Amino acid sequence: MKLFFEPRRVALIGASTNKRRPGNQLFRNMEACFGDDFYPVNPRVEAIGDKPCYKSILDIPAKIDLAVIFIPASAVPKALEQCAEKGIRRVIIESAGFAETGPEGRALEARCLAIGRDRGLRIWGPNCMGLINVHQAKVLSFMASWIWEGVFSAGVVSLVVQSGMLSAGFLGHILGRTPFGLSKVCSIGNKMDVDETDLLEYFVDDPETQVIAMYLESLQRGRRFVELARSTNKPIVVLKGGRSSFGKKAAISHTSALAQDARVMEAALGQAGVIRVRGMTELLDVARCLAVGEVKKSARARTAVLTFSGGGGVVTADLLSDLGMELADLTPPTLARLKEVFPEWMDPSNPVDLYPAYEKGGTAETLKRTIAAVMEDPGVDGVYLHVFAPPSRRPLYDYDETARLMVAHGKPVVVWVMGLPESAREVSIEFEKRGIPTVGEVGRGVRVLAALTMRR
Amino acid sequence: MKLFFEPRRVALIGASTNKRRPGNQLFRNMEACFGDDFYPVNPRVEAIGDKPCYKSILDIPAKIDLAVIFIPASAVPKALEQCAEKGIRRVIIESAGFAETGPEGRALEARCLAIGRDRGLRIWGPNCMGLINVHQAKVLSFMASWIWEGVFSAGVVSLVVQSGMLSAGFLGHILGRTPFGLSKVCSIGNKMDVDETDLLEYFVDDPETQVIAMYLESLQRGRRFVELARSTNKPIVVLKGGRSSFGKKAAISHTSALAQDARVMEAALGQAGVIRVRGMTELLDVARCLAVGEVKKSARARTAVLTFSGGGGVVTADLLSDLGMELADLTPPTLARLKEVFPEWMDPSNPVDLYPAYEKGGTAETLKRTIAAVMEDPGVDGVYLHVFAPPSRRPLYDYDETARLMVAHGKPVVVWVMGLPESAREVSIEFEKRGIPTVGEVGRGVRVLAALTMRR
Repeated sequence: MKLFFEPRRVALIGASTNKRRPGNQLFRNMEACFGDDFYPVNPRVEAIGDKPCYKSILDIPAKIDLAVIFIPASAVPKALEQCAEKGIRRVIIESAGFAETGPEGRALEARCLAIGRDRGLRIWGPNCMGLINVHQAKVLSFMASWIWEGVFSAGVVSLVVQSGMLSAGFLGHILGRTPFGLSKVCSIGNKMDVDETDLLEYFVDDPETQVIAMYLESLQRGRRFVELARSTNKPIVVLKGGRSSFGKKAAISHTSALAQDARVMEAALGQAGVIRVRGMTELLDVARCLAVGEVKKSARARTAVLTFSGGGGVVTADLLSDLGMELADLTPPTLARLKEVFPEWMDPSNPVDLYPAYEKGGTAETLKRTIAAVMEDPGVDGVYLHVFAPPSRRPLYDYDETARLMVAHGKPVVVWVMGLPESAREVSIEFEKRGIPTVGEVGRGVRVLAALTMRR
Repeated sequence: MKLFFEPRRVALIGASTNKRRPGNQLFRNMEACFGDDFYPVNPRVEAIGDKPCYKSILDIPAKIDLAVIFIPASAVPKALEQCAEKGIRRVIIESAGFAETGPEGRALEARCLAIGRDRGLRIWGPNCMGLINVHQAKVLSFMASWIWEGVFSAGVVSLVVQSGMLSAGFLGHILGRTPFGLSKVCSIGNKMDVDETDLLEYFVDDPETQVIAMYLESLQRGRRFVELARSTNKPIVVLKGGRSSFGKKAAISHTSALAQDARVMEAALGQAGVIRVRGMTELLDVARCLAVGEVKKSARARTAVLTFSGGGGVVTADLLSDLGMELADLTPPTLARLKEVFPEWMDPSNPVDLYPAYEKGGTAETLKRTIAAVMEDPGVDGVYLHVFAPPSRRPLYDYDETARLMVAHGKPVVVWVMGLPESAREVSIEFEKRGIPTVGEVGRGVRVLAALTMRR
């Protein structure tokens, strides 16, 4: 796999002169990332801009590590043969029009695969958006530059998806709102050859990857996948597309996903410790938070909710219940410690509505004492803290000490930061840089906490 | 109720000099909104700033329509007696320390209620944040001014909540991200006297209210509530706090909500056409979208999904299924019409992945033809459209004609707008001003569409 992510010289078969076409976007991305080590192929033009084009891949006067193919599906087999002849070992087919279109496309795909097997080519795709190696700024995708440029930053999350949008527009959408660092972004489409199991195997050993997130419409080589998942401590999050009968039908026409027994797959992944999520935002939320915070799973996920609003606590309790989590029964010593920070008229219970305590003893001090008490409670498996971010220059929380108390016990914590966008962002950054994951929406936080705490 | 929302002269019992106290925030809000018609009471100071204070409500040399009380709970009965003596008919008690604290508090609350009944006072609260009449800019709440000032704008949604945060911080949080117009915001707390049914009765006839959204931990006078809900065409959305056993326990300690049979309440509300939601964000999302778009309920909620991403379509189909909705089976004539906009190799099906069609025929034209086809399909009850907002000055969509085609059939439509924040906001505004509700997160859109289309 390494040669896919770190090729030195690359070619593009299907460089387009039309700025509105993906083949032109590919040209621009690859030229920007590889410069002189990029060789475009287009038999109809001499050059695109200042960059000379080659009539054929065979005309390129250099050794090529990897070729990206973006030409009509019917012309792909011949291009593969030429790649093999040129000595190229890695090919990414981004064109659509293969197995997802029906029997003819399936036959075409089988022909391509046979060529690859026969000639020693590893093939990525087809019907995909290729890959981005964020650490090395290598873009082998027709993803528009406004999505990745200045939006993608280097980090520890590697993403594997079977969909263009999920690796591109949607990712940009999320990163434009809640930035986090990425390592490799992989769109594998129909995965005729390279599949999620190949990539999992690579990421398990990749020092730049600490969290693995996947959107899959089918799971190929499930046994090996599960074996790899068991073998690693790196958290793996999977969103399975086609959980429902409607979704399954849609998945077949999208990436020709084979019908599989979703429940069997679900159970096998669960036993291997893979975190399963239900939506795209949840996939990225959980991956982002896994890159920051603690994971520690338990059977009951007994949760302490610290809020500044009774209503917020009630609704959060309902949302926890919806996911099968429990409200922790705080022990008498914990309740006695909490009682000390509250006004005399109030007997705290879980969810702990801190508002009256904040009024009495100040926000920073009250929060530290409360966090210490619930963290040390043996009946608490995880903590969901709601904090308020008023537009004030004076910090409301003692971040250093609060975060220290939060991470000292190895119990997962998620913080929901509420407030106007700018002040909320500031408070989030303070927590996150101290290893505490934050979310911007209360229900999303419940889902993240479930992912970090629930054995299921 | 009108006198609560449109008082002319108001008093505050418990004006505080300490800027960090809610009693001072109340003072500042009421002074800003009522000016010379505002009379603060504080027996320990002559004035707060330039504003003279009165030793007692009885000393105020004017007729008072409404008094807000924010003093320790134990002193409230005497204050109520004095209000009655002064001829005041409407009181809002914002102090906590009543029924939510246990038997003593319950007794105190009962005493207050008896005074009210005996002396002809209507009492709002206690343990609440009062109300805001947004159209008249009247703030009778200790809500911090940075939450409402410049963030609340006048519109048609009236909100009733039994929680401070839900009417204040959380509302500011949502409005700071997705602005929408409000009419009245009511935090009713323990609702010893004025309850959601009083307010529903008022809003049903209030010309400034077109959508009613409520967060309730209990439903008092349920029969009358259901009768009123049946009598109106204004949509009503309810989030019930305490749906789960954990949540119910939390609700009792929050607003002393009586244990009620959630399923009975749920069924009665459903029969009255009330839309029930499960989370706070969902409550406000649905209310906001109801203020913009169509509602038309059906048993199966057969949905056409128009996307630009196969994966987005698959996941959306799964999320629709999770809520009990269906993917519409498009009729052969509809499929034939869609086929015309697609490249030859692709047979469209629902979810309709428009990407290849956009590539072939351009975005604006393709979208119009697709919308027309699915809207006219008798097997489609609602449409979920995903659109992409690239950072381009040239508009990608023909908003006028697309929106016209969308609203012409009276079928609910929700648009998920994806893209970097600024361009996504621009596209959202274009759709919303033409009567098409938009959301910024794919799962939130599914929940909104369920609220607009599902009979349940």
